[in-house]
Amino acid sequence: MYKCSVDRMKDLINTFSQFGATGDGGITRYELSEASIMARTEFKKRMEEIGATVEIDDLACMYATLPGTDPKAKRIVMGSHCDSVRNGGNYDGILGVMGAMEALTTVAKDKIAHKHPLTAMIWTNEEGSLYPPAMMVSGIITNDYLPPAIAKNFQFDNMMKSVSVVDKTTTFGEQLAKYPFIGDKANRITPDKYKAMFELHIEQGPILEDAGNEVGVVDCVLGMFNYRVKFFGQAAHAGTFPMAKRKDALFAAAQALIHIHTEVDKLGRPELVYTTGEIVCHPCVHTVIPDYIDFSIDCRHEDPEVRAKVMAILEDVAKKEWAGCRCEIEEKWQRDTVYFNETLFNYVKTSAEELGLKHQVIHSGAGHDAQFCNYMMPTTMIFVRSKDGLSHCEPEYSSPEDCTAGASVMLNAVLKADSE
Amino acid sequence: MYKCSVDRMKDLINTFSQFGATGDGGITRYELSEASIMARTEFKKRMEEIGATVEIDDLACMYATLPGTDPKAKRIVMGSHCDSVRNGGNYDGILGVMGAMEALTTVAKDKIAHKHPLTAMIWTNEEGSLYPPAMMVSGIITNDYLPPAIAKNFQFDNMMKSVSVVDKTTTFGEQLAKYPFIGDKANRITPDKYKAMFELHIEQGPILEDAGNEVGVVDCVLGMFNYRVKFFGQAAHAGTFPMAKRKDALFAAAQALIHIHTEVDKLGRPELVYTTGEIVCHPCVHTVIPDYIDFSIDCRHEDPEVRAKVMAILEDVAKKEWAGCRCEIEEKWQRDTVYFNETLFNYVKTSAEELGLKHQVIHSGAGHDAQFCNYMMPTTMIFVRSKDGLSHCEPEYSSPEDCTAGASVMLNAVLKADSE
Repeated sequence: MYKCSVDRMKDLINTFSQFGATGDGGITRYELSEASIMARTEFKKRMEEIGATVEIDDLACMYATLPGTDPKAKRIVMGSHCDSVRNGGNYDGILGVMGAMEALTTVAKDKIAHKHPLTAMIWTNEEGSLYPPAMMVSGIITNDYLPPAIAKNFQFDNMMKSVSVVDKTTTFGEQLAKYPFIGDKANRITPDKYKAMFELHIEQGPILEDAGNEVGVVDCVLGMFNYRVKFFGQAAHAGTFPMAKRKDALFAAAQALIHIHTEVDKLGRPELVYTTGEIVCHPCVHTVIPDYIDFSIDCRHEDPEVRAKVMAILEDVAKKEWAGCRCEIEEKWQRDTVYFNETLFNYVKTSAEELGLKHQVIHSGAGHDAQFCNYMMPTTMIFVRSKDGLSHCEPEYSSPEDCTAGASVMLNAVLKADSE
Repeated sequence: MYKCSVDRMKDLINTFSQFGATGDGGITRYELSEASIMARTEFKKRMEEIGATVEIDDLACMYATLPGTDPKAKRIVMGSHCDSVRNGGNYDGILGVMGAMEALTTVAKDKIAHKHPLTAMIWTNEEGSLYPPAMMVSGIITNDYLPPAIAKNFQFDNMMKSVSVVDKTTTFGEQLAKYPFIGDKANRITPDKYKAMFELHIEQGPILEDAGNEVGVVDCVLGMFNYRVKFFGQAAHAGTFPMAKRKDALFAAAQALIHIHTEVDKLGRPELVYTTGEIVCHPCVHTVIPDYIDFSIDCRHEDPEVRAKVMAILEDVAKKEWAGCRCEIEEKWQRDTVYFNETLFNYVKTSAEELGLKHQVIHSGAGHDAQFCNYMMPTTMIFVRSKDGLSHCEPEYSSPEDCTAGASVMLNAVLKADSE
């Protein structure tokens, strides 16, 4: 068994945490920003130092490759993203890049024999924080392999028009054209040239920590749906309109939200997660009764039948009036559960066992580039535990030891795939 | 009894509805905007045509005065505002200006004898839609007479720094300095020079319409308080964080909102109104459990003891945890019930009776410049009915006949005050 270096991982974490540092322990590293240039410059420098060749595709994805002994063998790639959410943490995404760098560095320093070229990769714009949607570039690159209902949301031309959520003006395409890390479409990851993809990531939840496990062997990414639940009321003056005649869309939304929780809880599925993260209020003035509210509902479960039961609850909600307000629901998108490649899954599981790490099989509740890549080629993921289950926030933390353990599992799984 | 002209009122309504017309039946006429210049130009032109002298004060309030027979008599003023909310209606505020113009026009055309100078007035920036707060300029002008807790919120220097809610840059003071309708501080309305103030306004609620009454004789402006109710949760990833461990601030807010409705309803006070018009969500992203929500609560009732009972319910809410989230409440402001001058109130009531109009005594649930002016000099208000009780929206409507009836009541009440 090969082991990655905790000292080198610490150095990587300390270094990358500077690029876009907020000063409060986290980072804001939007894709195509100055901070992302710093992270990519560091990636290129360090990978060239160990003898890797760095290529870039037309979407700014970066590929650092160490040649293997078989000139005809396809590449095996390890990668993740280096962009973050606003006020995010130092591990989401970048851990998969640092883990790939550390795995390649271990191969180079320890002169580990391998047949296939081994590649460390940066996927562009996974978070989509500045230029939505999330997983934009893996959605473009794997587009021909995705189910049509998903593929249509990731058309190259439309993605290039994605407008900055900050200045509401600059498009992704415009910014990409000015970006220093831009290369040739021929360099994109494809099944012709690549044999398998591994993505190391933090869990972003508390399951491993609560179970006392260091590493998660990921079997699937949960299927999910995203709906909007809308309420149409009547605006009127806060001081002059009697309560009995009101059609208050916020009161309606509150009633429906409680109802949804009550009904979903009755399904008795503690592993089901659903989230109402976004709420829009119109006109949102303290002296006016709201005439319109909508909230998002994001629901995730492995089993499509369980998701259908939640959807049925929402359909039932839309049939009723709430506080005198009409209700409508709108599907924004949905995705089936994506099961990772069984062979690669087993390589990861065996590697964790052989390394003597405490591990378990785990589902991914979050979406990742790996789930799109899995439609295109054999793919899998490795999780490391997250302190308090927190992610997408500055306190996000995984210990250097756990991060290194994850990288070691990935390296050994890659080498198993290499010797296949 | 003197009667105003329905035809002239129709012409006024048609004319003023053009200034800032949205094209959807309403107006957006922010104070100090181009649309407000158009409305004030029309006011000046029409008032000079009937022989009135137009003066302007340092805060852009405009005063059009017809002299009376007694050179030593103080002025009697009728007025309201000509600014609107965004996508507001054609009656809120401007009716009081048009009613004053029509009353003066009737006096001039019918050569009605009067002792006191009679003034039609435009109060500046009542809505405060572009430059908050509402009732900004009446708050400045009457500042020395207001209760200290209110007066402190309307200090001249601070008001001049009020920043545009649209461009977030321009201040009220900067825009005022460039405004064509700007004059001398000596022209401000004061108790030395003015004897009484009348404000004609639409009801903005459904009470008159439901009772089949044309006109409301306003006895008071309801006391009110405005609080923020805040919930502090824990952000985490929508896909990875188990339901049982969540501290979802939006779910907490929904529970508390339902609780507040239930408890307030138990007070058995159908005349009490309370509104949660504004809600803030952080980070308001569909994939993140909200860690912070606050909503506004605006509560209005004549009786301070009833308001205190609602406040006690809020204090109780803040003592509990909601869905694992801590709750805090913050008082933003409160105001006592303002009772209008009894003599003027009786002039209005008698005038409505004598004109044979269907009328009733009514409270004002909304705030108006008249309520601040009432601290400075005898003041009262007249309401006309609002179709469906709607206001602060484009369908806002009062018939030309009702608007004219309101103006006639005001004119006769003014003439009673004149002969006093």
